[in-house]
Amino acid sequence: MMRLGIAGTGLVGGSIALRARAGGATVIAYDADPAALVRARERGAIDTIAIDLRELAAQCDTLVIALPVDATREALHALAGMPPGILPELTIDVASVKAAIAAGPVPAHFVGTHPMAGRERGGIDAADPALFAGATWAYVPPAEGALEPPVRAFIEAMGALPLPVDATRHDEIVALTSHLPQALSVLLGAQLAAASDGTQVKELCGPGMMSMLRLARSPESVWAPIVAANARPLAEQMHAFARTLMSVARGLEQGDISGLMAYFGDARRSADALEERLSTPARSSPYQ
Amino acid sequence: MMRLGIAGTGLVGGSIALRARAGGATVIAYDADPAALVRARERGAIDTIAIDLRELAAQCDTLVIALPVDATREALHALAGMPPGILPELTIDVASVKAAIAAGPVPAHFVGTHPMAGRERGGIDAADPALFAGATWAYVPPAEGALEPPVRAFIEAMGALPLPVDATRHDEIVALTSHLPQALSVLLGAQLAAASDGTQVKELCGPGMMSMLRLARSPESVWAPIVAANARPLAEQMHAFARTLMSVARGLEQGDISGLMAYFGDARRSADALEERLSTPARSSPYQ
Repeated sequence: MMRLGIAGTGLVGGSIALRARAGGATVIAYDADPAALVRARERGAIDTIAIDLRELAAQCDTLVIALPVDATREALHALAGMPPGILPELTIDVASVKAAIAAGPVPAHFVGTHPMAGRERGGIDAADPALFAGATWAYVPPAEGALEPPVRAFIEAMGALPLPVDATRHDEIVALTSHLPQALSVLLGAQLAAASDGTQVKELCGPGMMSMLRLARSPESVWAPIVAANARPLAEQMHAFARTLMSVARGLEQGDISGLMAYFGDARRSADALEERLSTPARSSPYQ
Repeated sequence: MMRLGIAGTGLVGGSIALRARAGGATVIAYDADPAALVRARERGAIDTIAIDLRELAAQCDTLVIALPVDATREALHALAGMPPGILPELTIDVASVKAAIAAGPVPAHFVGTHPMAGRERGGIDAADPALFAGATWAYVPPAEGALEPPVRAFIEAMGALPLPVDATRHDEIVALTSHLPQALSVLLGAQLAAASDGTQVKELCGPGMMSMLRLARSPESVWAPIVAANARPLAEQMHAFARTLMSVARGLEQGDISGLMAYFGDARRSADALEERLSTPARSSPYQ
């Protein structure tokens, strides 16, 4: 039976653990926060607890580092310094940027990955074995080709769709598909906050504003290292967005709505395509 | 028993009709699209059908114009030209802008209103008697003071919270709270579409992008007259947003993430306050 190690029992680590146990794996976990481990055991996400990262690595066949970006780099650095003999057959991370991970020291048998799933609320209490159902799960094709079949098998066992992507290209793409939406949501929430003092502004918010502020509830602690690791690609996407916004606004000042209205068709096609893809039922196979 | 007239049996008109009938009112409806009237009757939203706006106005005590902005102006113009004797005791509209409505010809006993509720999909099939539960429903305080109690009673009967707002101030506020979020969603969808040709971009979209594109599915036919009527206040909000975006992006280019991260706290407080307000259970009283 597969022994799966999880470093970090938050939303992603906890969801992986729940799914793996449901598939018959034994899950061993380590988290720097003992209370998180207790909650993870109460939720039925883990079988046993390791006392540190080294013990965790020594006891499992596959190891998942499910930590924020900066903590992921530290953990991989620590693993890279351990005796190769204790390392698992496969180690993966799930961090939201891939070039910064690939650039640092990583242990033997390592593959960088990134599941395109999440929630605005983190933590083990939000974990869900179906979190990855039908989602894309990107991985950076490993130089060690023998690692590719097991990493794909792991992703498929999570109910997700494996997608090989170059690390730098991955980061450029998620600057648009993930980091720009996050930044827009935060800046919109801040513009609302700045206008909300002593007026009727809050009362005149409806479900539209609400849906645009969902991402703004994500914690700084998760986002600061992501933004730091992907600052330039994100800045490029922001500048492109700002240029379009200003061009459209200049038209509106002159009573010309055609600039804005011309984007509705493309935008709806994007939204419809995404809705269709994300609502597709998951392929799935048990993880054992 | 109250006879309620509804001109336009789309999402908002249909939802008002369903709620009013559940409260015991008789609902008479007119829609330029006969198929919409048939569907509204099949859904149990209306009791009888009027052959035109004039007959509708003559047969009801309260008349709701539930049409897109431009069609609302036309309907109010037509009503203003009818003999005062056939007009209802109260006529309201539900359009998303209020200054342009107030500036045009309106019939006697008219009050401009705007419910802060909606969905990205319109039409009678999306109508819901609970659409307005707990939502703010703005109204422009009428010069004819005797109209204020009945308009407030109507809004409360819909399960919503009446909020008096000056027409111009309303439009300035919704430029921020409704029209800017719509524009950001559309421009984000368009930027995604422009980058999506032949790449892995679509596959690397997750639930975050999805939530930011929900609004982008709203139809141009609804938004074009709103944008046209509120172009300048919207342009001001867009310029303010673009300025912040560029300032933050310039910081990121130099590896300084503090500009962006500083907005997370305000943004989360906005999002939390909105979540709390929009999830508050509705006060409600029957409409009869």
